[in-house]
Amino acid sequence: MDIELYMQTLGRQARTASADMARAATRAKNKALSELARLLLEAGDPLKLANDQDIAAALAAGLAAPMVDRLRLTDEIIATMAEGCEQLAAMPDPIGEITNVKRQPSGISVGQMRVPLGVFGMIYESRPNVTIEAASLAIKSGNACILRGGSEAIQSNLALWQLVRQALTSAGLPAEAVQMVETIDRAAVGALITMPSHVDVIIPRGGKGLIERISKEAKVPVIKHLDGNCHTYIDAEVNIEQALVVTDNAKTQKYSPCNATESLLVHAAAAAAFLPRIGAIFAAKGVEMRCDPGSRAILGSVAGATVTEATEEDWSTEYLAPVISVKVVADLDAAIAHINRYSSHHTDAILTTNHPNAMRFLREVDSSSVMVNASTRFADGFEYGLGAEIGISTDKIHARGPVGLEGLTSQKWIVLGDGHIRR
Amino acid sequence: MDIELYMQTLGRQARTASADMARAATRAKNKALSELARLLLEAGDPLKLANDQDIAAALAAGLAAPMVDRLRLTDEIIATMAEGCEQLAAMPDPIGEITNVKRQPSGISVGQMRVPLGVFGMIYESRPNVTIEAASLAIKSGNACILRGGSEAIQSNLALWQLVRQALTSAGLPAEAVQMVETIDRAAVGALITMPSHVDVIIPRGGKGLIERISKEAKVPVIKHLDGNCHTYIDAEVNIEQALVVTDNAKTQKYSPCNATESLLVHAAAAAAFLPRIGAIFAAKGVEMRCDPGSRAILGSVAGATVTEATEEDWSTEYLAPVISVKVVADLDAAIAHINRYSSHHTDAILTTNHPNAMRFLREVDSSSVMVNASTRFADGFEYGLGAEIGISTDKIHARGPVGLEGLTSQKWIVLGDGHIRR
Repeated sequence: MDIELYMQTLGRQARTASADMARAATRAKNKALSELARLLLEAGDPLKLANDQDIAAALAAGLAAPMVDRLRLTDEIIATMAEGCEQLAAMPDPIGEITNVKRQPSGISVGQMRVPLGVFGMIYESRPNVTIEAASLAIKSGNACILRGGSEAIQSNLALWQLVRQALTSAGLPAEAVQMVETIDRAAVGALITMPSHVDVIIPRGGKGLIERISKEAKVPVIKHLDGNCHTYIDAEVNIEQALVVTDNAKTQKYSPCNATESLLVHAAAAAAFLPRIGAIFAAKGVEMRCDPGSRAILGSVAGATVTEATEEDWSTEYLAPVISVKVVADLDAAIAHINRYSSHHTDAILTTNHPNAMRFLREVDSSSVMVNASTRFADGFEYGLGAEIGISTDKIHARGPVGLEGLTSQKWIVLGDGHIRR
Repeated sequence: MDIELYMQTLGRQARTASADMARAATRAKNKALSELARLLLEAGDPLKLANDQDIAAALAAGLAAPMVDRLRLTDEIIATMAEGCEQLAAMPDPIGEITNVKRQPSGISVGQMRVPLGVFGMIYESRPNVTIEAASLAIKSGNACILRGGSEAIQSNLALWQLVRQALTSAGLPAEAVQMVETIDRAAVGALITMPSHVDVIIPRGGKGLIERISKEAKVPVIKHLDGNCHTYIDAEVNIEQALVVTDNAKTQKYSPCNATESLLVHAAAAAAFLPRIGAIFAAKGVEMRCDPGSRAILGSVAGATVTEATEEDWSTEYLAPVISVKVVADLDAAIAHINRYSSHHTDAILTTNHPNAMRFLREVDSSSVMVNASTRFADGFEYGLGAEIGISTDKIHARGPVGLEGLTSQKWIVLGDGHIRR
C-alpha cells in the first residue's frame, strides 16, 4: 500500500466533500446527527463485537488495566455519545451567521459571515468515543474531517465510522465528509499533517509527547492542547470556609483531568488560618503536599500529612495524581508572577473577597481560563455552554481554552454595495 | 556578533515588556501614540538625513526607480503616519473588553476577555512607514513587537524607531515594547521565526517568495498574506452601466494593489451586452485582455484592443499590471466553481441584481472578502473601518482578510463564581 498516495486520495475526497458540507442545509446536518444518535443506540452486537476485539487484543498485548478500561464502549458510554449528537442537532447552526454589518463612510456595508474552516485532521489516542465527538462536531460545523484514532481502538473506531457514513448518506450528505485512516501505519500521520492543500488544521488529542511531535512536524496549523498545570490562589481577604470547599474540589474531585489544580498558592496573611485546615483535608484523602519552606513550616505539623520539600521542577509539574505543590506568597503580585511563570496557561483561579484583586487577577493572569471563586475543574466545553468540545487549546492564536463549534469556524468579510467604487 | 544570542536577548526583553504592555493603562498607550505623532511631525532634518542615506545607497546599488520611490519619506507620507497614530489613539481600547458573560446551569458566569497576543515579530520589505504602522498597532493592542525591516531602509527604520522609543518612554511605557533588529544579517530572520518561547506570531509583509519561505521555516504561527488573484463576476441579471463603472474601477483605479481585479468572469447571457463596452474601456487604457475562446470571439473585434489567448496559468495569475484574464461562464455555478478553484481566496465580487444569486455567491465563494456590487479595491482595513491594518490574511485560521487591532488580540475565558464547585 502506497501510504502517501492513499492519504492524498483521502485528502482530495475530504476537500471535495467540504464544499458540499459548507453549503449543506441546517436541516440536513441535523438529520444526520439525529440519525447517528439512533444508529448508535441501535448498533447492538456488531459494535460490541468490534469493541471486544480491541479489548481482547489490548489484554493480549498486556496493556495496563486503566488503558483497557478507556477502550470499553459500555451501554452508558454509547448512550452518552448518542445524547451528544442529539444535543448538537438541537443547537443553532453557527454557519452563515452574519454579524457586525456596518455602513462605512464610502457607503459600502461591511460585516462578517461565519464559515467552516474546511477540512480538519484529528489525531487521537485510545477512547473510541472521540470518533463520534469529532464526527458530530464536523457535521454540525459544516467541515469535512479525516480521523486517525489509536491503533488499540481500530476495530471500534471502524465500526463507529460505518454508522457515521450511514447517517451522512441517509441525510443526503457526502459520506466522505467524515473519513477514517484505515491503516495503523504511522506514516499516515506524517502524511496527514503535511498536506496543506487538503487539510486546513490539525487537532491532536493525546499525551504531551504526541502533541509536541505533531506540532514540530506539521506543515498546517495545529490547535494544541499541551498540559494543564492549574493553580488555585488563596488571597489575603478570603472566605476561608468557601476556599476550603473550592480548593478541595479543584484538587480532589478527580485527579486525572487536565483542569484539576496542581499547585496551591496562599497569601502569607491567610496561611495560618487556611493551610492547617486544607492540609488536614488533603491528609485525609492521601494527597501528598510538596511545599516551599513557608508552607512546610505550617503543613509539617498536620497530623497524618505527607509533606515533602518542593523542587524547582514541582512548580511546573502536572501531576494528574494525588499530589499538589504548595507555596506561601507575599502578595497578589507574587502570586500573579508565579502563575505567569510556571502555569501552562490552561486554567488558574483566585479565591478572594477583594474586588480590585479579583479584577487584577482576571486581567493579568495570562491563561486560557481565569476564574474567581470557582473550582478550576469547571474549565470544560460543556460547563462553558459550548455544547461539545473538540479539545482545549493552550494556544493563543485562533482558539483559546475549550474549543467547540465556533473554534471549527472562521469569519469571512462580506461587503454589500450598490455600484460603489473606490475613489 | 552572535546573532542567536542577540535575538534571544531581544526575545527575552520583548517578553518582559509584553507583560507591562498587557496591563498598561489605555491613557498611557494613547499618550504614547499622540506623542509619536508629534515627534514624527517635528522630526525634521535628522529623519530626512537618515532617509537620504537609504536613498543614496539604493541609487548607488542601482535599484529600480519604483523601488527607490517606495523608500522615500516625503512630508506627505510623514503626515499620513502621524495621522494614523492619532487615529489609533482616538479608537476604543480593544484590551480588557468583556463579552458574552452568561450564567450557566451550574451557577457560574462564563464570558470572554480580550487580551493581547503577547509578542509579534514583523518582517517587511522596503516601505519604512510600515515601521510606524506596526509600532503603533503594537502599542494600542498592548503587544510587544520585534521589527525586522528591509536592509534597503535600515537607516530610515532606525531613525523612526528612535522616535517610537522616545514616545514609549515619555508615556511611562517600556522602550522594549517595540524593538528593532539592528543588523541586516539574514540569520536574524531565521532566529526570529524559531523562538516560540519569546515570539507568539510572525507577520510577514512582502513578496510571495519571502512569505512562503517564512511559512515553511517558522516554528510559530504565521499570519500569511499570499497573493491577491481577485475576481469580478458579471451575472446574467445585472445593471450594465453600474457593472462597467465597478469593473473599470476594480481593474484600473490602481494596478499594483493586491485587491485589484485580475480576472473577469461574465455570464454568457450578459457577454454580448457587457464585453464589447468593457473591452473598449480597457483598450483605451491599454489593458491587455487574456481571453478564453468565448470572450475572445467578442473582444477580438473591439477596436484597438490587445486580446490574446489565455493559458491555464493565466487563471491563477496575479498580474499587478494592466493585464486581465477574461472568461465567459455558463452560469453562477460555473463562476463559483472557477473562483473557488483559481482564486487566491483574497477578494472576489459578484455584480448582479438577482438577490438569490447574490446570497449564494456570498455564502459559497470561499474567500476572505466576498462582495456584492462593489469594487474589489475596497478590501482594505481602513475601508472596513478597522482604523489601521497590519496586513491582509489569506489564511482561515485566527484572522481572515484585513487584520487590524482585533487580529493582534486573543480572547481568554473568564469564570465568575461564588464558591462554586464541580459536581
